[in-house]
Amino acid sequence: MVRVGIINVTGYMGAEAARVLYGHPEVEIASVTGRSEAGRNIGDVYPHLTALDLDIQEDLDDVDVIISALPHGASAERLAPYIEQGVPVVDLSSDFRLKDVSQYERFRGKHPAPHLVEKAVFGIPELHHDEIANGKLVANTGCHSAAAIYALAPLVQAGLVDSNIIVDSKTGLSGAGRSVKQNLHFSEANESVTPYGFDGHYQQPEITQELGALWEAPPPKVTFIPHLVPVTRGIMVTAYAAPRDGVDGTPTDNLRALYEDFYADATFVRVSDGPPSTKHTAGSNYCLVFPTFDEESGRYIVIGTLDNLGKGGATGGVQCLNIMLGLPETAGLEGLALYP
Amino acid sequence: MVRVGIINVTGYMGAEAARVLYGHPEVEIASVTGRSEAGRNIGDVYPHLTALDLDIQEDLDDVDVIISALPHGASAERLAPYIEQGVPVVDLSSDFRLKDVSQYERFRGKHPAPHLVEKAVFGIPELHHDEIANGKLVANTGCHSAAAIYALAPLVQAGLVDSNIIVDSKTGLSGAGRSVKQNLHFSEANESVTPYGFDGHYQQPEITQELGALWEAPPPKVTFIPHLVPVTRGIMVTAYAAPRDGVDGTPTDNLRALYEDFYADATFVRVSDGPPSTKHTAGSNYCLVFPTFDEESGRYIVIGTLDNLGKGGATGGVQCLNIMLGLPETAGLEGLALYP
Amino acid sequence: MVRVGIINVTGYMGAEAARVLYGHPEVEIASVTGRSEAGRNIGDVYPHLTALDLDIQEDLDDVDVIISALPHGASAERLAPYIEQGVPVVDLSSDFRLKDVSQYERFRGKHPAPHLVEKAVFGIPELHHDEIANGKLVANTGCHSAAAIYALAPLVQAGLVDSNIIVDSKTGLSGAGRSVKQNLHFSEANESVTPYGFDGHYQQPEITQELGALWEAPPPKVTFIPHLVPVTRGIMVTAYAAPRDGVDGTPTDNLRALYEDFYADATFVRVSDGPPSTKHTAGSNYCLVFPTFDEESGRYIVIGTLDNLGKGGATGGVQCLNIMLGLPETAGLEGLALYP
Amino acid sequence: MVRVGIINVTGYMGAEAARVLYGHPEVEIASVTGRSEAGRNIGDVYPHLTALDLDIQEDLDDVDVIISALPHGASAERLAPYIEQGVPVVDLSSDFRLKDVSQYERFRGKHPAPHLVEKAVFGIPELHHDEIANGKLVANTGCHSAAAIYALAPLVQAGLVDSNIIVDSKTGLSGAGRSVKQNLHFSEANESVTPYGFDGHYQQPEITQELGALWEAPPPKVTFIPHLVPVTRGIMVTAYAAPRDGVDGTPTDNLRALYEDFYADATFVRVSDGPPSTKHTAGSNYCLVFPTFDEESGRYIVIGTLDNLGKGGATGGVQCLNIMLGLPETAGLEGLALYP
Repeated sequence: MVRVGIINVTGYMGAEAARVLYGHPEVEIASVTGRSEAGRNIGDVYPHLTALDLDIQEDLDDVDVIISALPHGASAERLAPYIEQGVPVVDLSSDFRLKDVSQYERFRGKHPAPHLVEKAVFGIPELHHDEIANGKLVANTGCHSAAAIYALAPLVQAGLVDSNIIVDSKTGLSGAGRSVKQNLHFSEANESVTPYGFDGHYQQPEITQELGALWEAPPPKVTFIPHLVPVTRGIMVTAYAAPRDGVDGTPTDNLRALYEDFYADATFVRVSDGPPSTKHTAGSNYCLVFPTFDEESGRYIVIGTLDNLGKGGATGGVQCLNIMLGLPETAGLEGLALYP
Repeated sequence: MVRVGIINVTGYMGAEAARVLYGHPEVEIASVTGRSEAGRNIGDVYPHLTALDLDIQEDLDDVDVIISALPHGASAERLAPYIEQGVPVVDLSSDFRLKDVSQYERFRGKHPAPHLVEKAVFGIPELHHDEIANGKLVANTGCHSAAAIYALAPLVQAGLVDSNIIVDSKTGLSGAGRSVKQNLHFSEANESVTPYGFDGHYQQPEITQELGALWEAPPPKVTFIPHLVPVTRGIMVTAYAAPRDGVDGTPTDNLRALYEDFYADATFVRVSDGPPSTKHTAGSNYCLVFPTFDEESGRYIVIGTLDNLGKGGATGGVQCLNIMLGLPETAGLEGLALYP
Repeated sequence: MVRVGIINVTGYMGAEAARVLYGHPEVEIASVTGRSEAGRNIGDVYPHLTALDLDIQEDLDDVDVIISALPHGASAERLAPYIEQGVPVVDLSSDFRLKDVSQYERFRGKHPAPHLVEKAVFGIPELHHDEIANGKLVANTGCHSAAAIYALAPLVQAGLVDSNIIVDSKTGLSGAGRSVKQNLHFSEANESVTPYGFDGHYQQPEITQELGALWEAPPPKVTFIPHLVPVTRGIMVTAYAAPRDGVDGTPTDNLRALYEDFYADATFVRVSDGPPSTKHTAGSNYCLVFPTFDEESGRYIVIGTLDNLGKGGATGGVQCLNIMLGLPETAGLEGLALYP
Repeated sequence: MVRVGIINVTGYMGAEAARVLYGHPEVEIASVTGRSEAGRNIGDVYPHLTALDLDIQEDLDDVDVIISALPHGASAERLAPYIEQGVPVVDLSSDFRLKDVSQYERFRGKHPAPHLVEKAVFGIPELHHDEIANGKLVANTGCHSAAAIYALAPLVQAGLVDSNIIVDSKTGLSGAGRSVKQNLHFSEANESVTPYGFDGHYQQPEITQELGALWEAPPPKVTFIPHLVPVTRGIMVTAYAAPRDGVDGTPTDNLRALYEDFYADATFVRVSDGPPSTKHTAGSNYCLVFPTFDEESGRYIVIGTLDNLGKGGATGGVQCLNIMLGLPETAGLEGLALYP
């Protein structure tokens, strides 16, 4: 059994990693840490994890591989020594996602370990399988960016779209984490929709970077606005783009064929037959994409949906971990979405 | 007291009209009808309306003005004789909204009374005050189209934008009405986001018509996708548009000034200081707009939010009724949103 | 116009008092305070209250009557000088509800102004109309206790029940206030039901006191457990009691007649024809009661439901204010529930 | 691999059985039926089950064991020939739960196969392990009754309580099934709590029967009222009972020890350290119980909570299936609850 350590198991991302690894046939959770909860059993913090019967520690014991669920900044700082020693790491934070450190620092302040950024592979297995397999540091994707990248990658790689892309995202509130805040207070968030990110959002350059790498043209210009919607888990991205100048729009049927082909080997990305719902992915490692071309307005409209703690977070990270360690890519991830 | 009749008081739109008219100082609900509930007291169908103590009838008694909350098709058919007799009518259905009957028929099938369409005024009081005051037939706005029109009218009238406009809408489920359907079943809709309208949506031409009337250019080309979100009341439109060719983008501060000016006399449309929430409008006749210009992507991003049964429905209809009858425009509509 | 001051308008109770008083025909909100928000306009804190256009102050200006929405302890402390000066006060906190200060101190710690307790009238207008009319200090009811008292008062007063009463309450989360807490965090509270109060709950003696005053027997022994349910507004109490020894159970039809009679003059307490829903009362000053006798188990089962910020809170407080000031009892309170 | 057939896979219970059996190491779903959906692939009805890639049939192929998720009445009728042939069956409906057919017929109308009732074992594995192991027909427990029985069995078996027991249940809406109904319409059910069952509820005699079998006294007299709460999955029962005449109340600490002992060998029933939440069990086969004694009122208050489609439904049924077939009792059921 591979011995995995989870840093900050007490956040939602860490807890979700623990939940799914509990059922992983080739991995054992050997050690977990949690900021303010050290000394308690994990079941005292999260009753649904009681069966794990793990004590939360200040520091990790020796492990074969690490998943970090720390917030940005703290994660890079804590991981740096491990990375330098060559311990395989999946970082669920945003610290190592952007090749251009200045883009990181625009949103996140000074990077704690910029010298390690070049070691990182962006954790979208369907685009970077071999680099992940050969790497030691996975910078797991953001949740919005995952949904956007899965929705748009086939279109962009095929060179079919104009570089002006609109990404309208609707996100469940667990993506904002477990720390209490006024706008996440039940009475405020329930029965409401609220947009945010008007001064820029740190996941916008993630989308730009990853889509930009798929074609030779300059990186796309992505307009990105996320919205809080009153669900716990789930992100839906609605992406809008015009056909590239001089290229006709691709009718929906052909577009679907293109997507089917692009994701032919991807167990966890499925081209949906009809408009998908976030709930079709809850608690699973699946992403559903639904590509269409609107003949009337001449625009591509593509939906991408996934669980922000799942394929866009902890379970997506476990998929990367599997690849990095040479385990079967789907191990521990076969669980279907909880519906209804 | 003006005697009003409500046709189909048993739908959500009709019930909301009744709720707000109960507190109207110059209007009395004289007669109500409801399709399958005739003979029952309104409080038996809607306990919250018990205080009205009205019997639901097959047909309206004589009244001074009519609000119809029937579904499309049935509404025009039922209203035609009243309109022909010159009874003032506010139609909450979509039957008389579109000047171009072929656009209506594309989505709704054969129009039951196309000869009456020219008599109708589109029920957005902030754009059509005088026509409403002088008219006898208000075709009350759609809920999505209201939010989109309020969000975009100042930009379009000022000629600042390109004609390619994206309207991404998130709607509460009461907009789909009281009739039970699988996708409105609690266990399916709760904790989920689902897009629809990929084959076109009947409110898209409403937006096109109303915005098109605000400039001399050809009508804008509107890409419109609505999404079901698990709230009962509330619509949020996020509109995206590029500056018109050859015109610089207007910075957010100036844009806000433009909007403040445009809505200076509008009691119920407010330029929000920060990103608004649907819940800030629930149960009220207010619409909040939040205009921004994203310098990085060079796109206008404008939010419009309202209660789909409120400003985008029944209370907006009461505002039109007030204007049409020469009553104070805000009478009966002063109620503030229910928050939290 | 009567000039009212609201202390702590920034909590949910204070904001709801402001919302409803905005439409009150004989009262003007003259001055409002809020702990940490002094200096801001109320619309900056609560966008739905923008139309009030009031600055939040440190201290109240001179007013004719005060509503306090401070938390317990702070409320009595702040109100004491006003009460001593004879300013009429409606206290929405629990500070002056219990005649037996030791019961208060059991849950709340040292009472800041025990000498004023005897001046207070418990704010259930249907039981204490004349004392409220003649008093200067209303200790407005608790939200759970209101629902329980309305549900049980007719049964208890008629001497029909045994003194062992079970009160199972389900409450929306706005009752826990605006301050953020882990168990009120959307992702934790949503899609969940959680009981609390196993070490006792401060509203249990409120129920005991008020029901005990309705008969000559010793006070009833009330077992009380509240549960958080994922709604914003609304409380439902399900009360269970056996017939008093030697007294036959009263069949449901007779029981309903007893309740109809008891509440014959109560505008805002209605005997529901069928099992009521919390949502039938949201945003209103109505309480619905539904009394039944279960022949099979020989138990009375009575439902009481209301909006915890409404009849069980701020609007109930406004009703008391009306009575205390000699205004029409229903002034400003005619608004019907927001449904759906 | 054991070949299982699921009858009526298109209801929520059937779909949940399919979801969990997909991950079962020793069982293969060989054949599924669904009333109106025959001919479609299961992924067309339930996108989250796409990976199963099963065609929905009119009739089952030959299988080793059957799970029926048909509604009551239809289930017994369809199962009768299989039972008569000796095919092992887990019936998730209520058809074979009650030994006293007249109690069944009181709520459900004429029983389609009363001669088979005596063959059935009530599907609570913690009470009936050996009968299930030796039987061929499991009448899987009801969802409310499961929560009530787990909450009360230790108290009743120990003879500690009076026979007058109050069971107040709060249930998520998936328990009412997938068929659309007005009271399950999102806009009606959301943000609301509604009690039902005032004329009796068919699960009340299930509770009475199972608890009654645990002591020598006459069966307890159970007062049972369920409430709809706006969650999809989850039931919480709050049970109230007085100590038996002449027996002192058992303090909470001792009570907990009693429960720990009673459930010492039960993998899936856990005595909770603090007040549990329904959400701690969502999507899992766990039941949490929380026994307390309220010294002040002299009443036992015990919480039982589980997922109505989980331990109180489909996964509980799979546990019975495992026992009946001699498979490891926990096979396929190790999945932890989805939280948050």
